[in-house]
Amino acid sequence: MKKHNFYAGPAILPQSVLQQASASIINFKELDLSILEISHRSKEFESVKDESESLVRELLEIDNDYAVLFLSGGASSQFFMVPMNLLPEHDTAHYVNTGTWSSGAIKEAKLFGNVNVIASSESDQFRHIPNQFEYPDSGAYLHITSNNTIYGSQYHWWPKGSIPLVCDMSSDIFSRKVDGKNFGLIYAGAQKNMGPAGVTLVVVKKDLLGKTGRKLPSMLDYKIHMDKGSMYNTPPVFPIYVSMLTMRWIKEMGGPEVMELRNNEKAAALYTEIDNNPCFEGTVRKQDRSHMNVVFKLKNSDHEAEFLKFCKDANCVGLQGHRSVGGFRASLYNALPLESVNVLVNVMQDFALKYA
Amino acid sequence: MKKHNFYAGPAILPQSVLQQASASIINFKELDLSILEISHRSKEFESVKDESESLVRELLEIDNDYAVLFLSGGASSQFFMVPMNLLPEHDTAHYVNTGTWSSGAIKEAKLFGNVNVIASSESDQFRHIPNQFEYPDSGAYLHITSNNTIYGSQYHWWPKGSIPLVCDMSSDIFSRKVDGKNFGLIYAGAQKNMGPAGVTLVVVKKDLLGKTGRKLPSMLDYKIHMDKGSMYNTPPVFPIYVSMLTMRWIKEMGGPEVMELRNNEKAAALYTEIDNNPCFEGTVRKQDRSHMNVVFKLKNSDHEAEFLKFCKDANCVGLQGHRSVGGFRASLYNALPLESVNVLVNVMQDFALKYA
Repeated sequence: MKKHNFYAGPAILPQSVLQQASASIINFKELDLSILEISHRSKEFESVKDESESLVRELLEIDNDYAVLFLSGGASSQFFMVPMNLLPEHDTAHYVNTGTWSSGAIKEAKLFGNVNVIASSESDQFRHIPNQFEYPDSGAYLHITSNNTIYGSQYHWWPKGSIPLVCDMSSDIFSRKVDGKNFGLIYAGAQKNMGPAGVTLVVVKKDLLGKTGRKLPSMLDYKIHMDKGSMYNTPPVFPIYVSMLTMRWIKEMGGPEVMELRNNEKAAALYTEIDNNPCFEGTVRKQDRSHMNVVFKLKNSDHEAEFLKFCKDANCVGLQGHRSVGGFRASLYNALPLESVNVLVNVMQDFALKYA
Repeated sequence: MKKHNFYAGPAILPQSVLQQASASIINFKELDLSILEISHRSKEFESVKDESESLVRELLEIDNDYAVLFLSGGASSQFFMVPMNLLPEHDTAHYVNTGTWSSGAIKEAKLFGNVNVIASSESDQFRHIPNQFEYPDSGAYLHITSNNTIYGSQYHWWPKGSIPLVCDMSSDIFSRKVDGKNFGLIYAGAQKNMGPAGVTLVVVKKDLLGKTGRKLPSMLDYKIHMDKGSMYNTPPVFPIYVSMLTMRWIKEMGGPEVMELRNNEKAAALYTEIDNNPCFEGTVRKQDRSHMNVVFKLKNSDHEAEFLKFCKDANCVGLQGHRSVGGFRASLYNALPLESVNVLVNVMQDFALKYA
C-alpha cells in the first residue's frame, strides 16, 4: 500500500517517474547499461542534458538571453554563489527576509559586498510576506525567497522594478505559471517539485555575468558552467535524469498552469479544513499562505502526539512540523494527489470528533 | 546481453548494487516509499549516512582523528576547497604535476596562496610519475594525484615526510589497500570505484582545520560540514545511498586487499597482451602504469576505427581514449570482472591476426 507522502523535501515524485528511474538503473535506453554507469560524455546522456535544458526553458518561458545551468551543492551554495557572481565588492544587494532561507542568503552575501535588508517579517516570527517596501532603484539586485518551506508563507505577487530580481524558488518552482523573463536569476534545489536531491537549477540572464571583477574558482563561476553547458566537470548524472523525467511529466500533465490549478485546489481543501475544524489553526497571514507547505497547529498542543498517531494510522507520513517551528506541516507538491489531501482532511475531522 | 563496460567514469558498478538501487527507487526498506522521496532527516536515511561513514573508516583504516564528509561538486570543487581550507594566504602548498587533474588543482590553488610545483612530468607528456623529488619540510601540504585517469599512470609508492600529504584518489580509491593514517586529506569523486556521479568523499585530519584565518561561505567550510555530520544542507541522498551499497559490496568481497589482487590480475592480463601483441604499445613508463586506466595505442594509428569496430562487435564499450590523448583506454575498476578483460584480450588477438 502506497503512503500519503507529505514530506517537505526530499519529497514525493510522480509514480511514473519512479518506475522509469528504477528501470533505467538496470537498462538505460536499451543500451544494456545502467544510467549510473555510462559516461556523461556519451551521446545518450548529452541528450538527457539537452532535453532537461529545453524543458526548463519551456516551463519557465525563457529564451536564449538566459543560461540554464545544472549545478550541485543545493540552494545553500547559491546563497554565496549569487553574490560572488553578481555583487561587486563596493555595490549593494537588497534582500527581503521572510524566513530561514532568506536569512541564510543574507548572511552569506555579507561576505561579498554591502547588504541592505529592505524588508523583513522576522519580528512577526515570519508569519507574513512584507508588501509595503519600495523596489530599490539602484544596487546589484533584489533577492527574495518565493516560498518559505519552514514557515509556510509564499509570495502571491511579484515585486517589480528596474534592478534585477533574484529569486530562490527551491520549494515552488514549476508549481505555478511564472514568466521567467521577469527575473534576473532564479535558483532552485531540485528536491521538491523538480526531482531528487543532488542537483540545483540556476537560470540567469547572460548579460548579468562577468561584471564583478572578482577572480573566482572555476567551479564557482557561472560563466564557466554556461560556456561548458553544465559539463565543466562530471555533473550529477542521475539527479539530472530524474529531473528531466519529472519536468516531462509536468509538461505532459499540461504544464505549470495545470499544476497551479491542482495545487490551488489541494491548498483550498486543506486550509478550509484548518479554518473550520475546532481543533486546528493556521499560523500564517491568510493572503500569504503557501500552497506548497501548509503549516498549522493544534489549539491544544498537548495532543500533538495523538494527532501524529492518527496520521500514521491513515498512512499519512511527513507531517511533523520543522523543528524550529513545531506543530504540523503538510507539503502539497505537484506530485501529491488530491486524494492524499482528502485523506488528511478526513483524519483531521476524525480527530476533531474525539478531541474537540 | 550485458556489455563489457570499460568507461573511465561514470563507470561500471556491481550488478548486485544496481539491483538493490533499482528496487529501492520503488520501495526503500519496506517503507512503501522511494529512496528518492524521503526526508534526509528520516531515521532511515540517517542510518544510510552513518553506515557510509563507518564503511569509509573501515576501508581506509582511519579513526576518529579524521572527519569523513560527503559533499557535492565533484573532485573539481576540492581543487579549490583544499587550499581555501588548508592554505593560509602567505604560506606555500607543494604540488606534483602528473596530468590534467593535478594541473587543475594547481591552477585553483594559486588563488589562495603560494604554490610550488615540486615535480612534474609535463615535459614527458605525463608518461611517468616523478620520483626523484625531495619531500618538502615546510609549507601547508604536499598534493598528489594518486591515479591519472587520462594519461594512465599511477603511484605505486607513497611520498613520505613531515608536512601533511593531500591526495586526490578519485580514480583509485578502494581499489587497493591504503593506510589512510598516512594522509592529511584524501578526496575522491565517487563515480569510479565508490558509486555514481553526484557525491564527493573528503577525509580530513581534524587538527588541520580552522587554521587559515580565512572567512569562508558556510558551504565551503569543511569544519561546518564536519560539525553537522555532512547534513548542513540536504545532501545528495541517492548518490550517497548507492555509494554505501558499493562500499558494502567491497567489504563483502574481502575489502581493498582483495580488490587489489583482482585489479592486479586484470591489469597484468591486459598489459601482457599490449606488450606481446605486434599491433599495440603502451604509453606509460612500465613501473608507473595504472592498474585502473590502461592507456595504449596502435603502432599504426590508421586502423583505430577498425579496432573500435572489433571492440563494439564483441560488446566492449568505452574504449576510445580521452580526446586529449587519443588511442585507447580500458578502465578496469573494481566492478569489472576478469572475464571482460579476457574478452578484450581476445579481441586484440583477433585484430592482430588480421592486421599484424
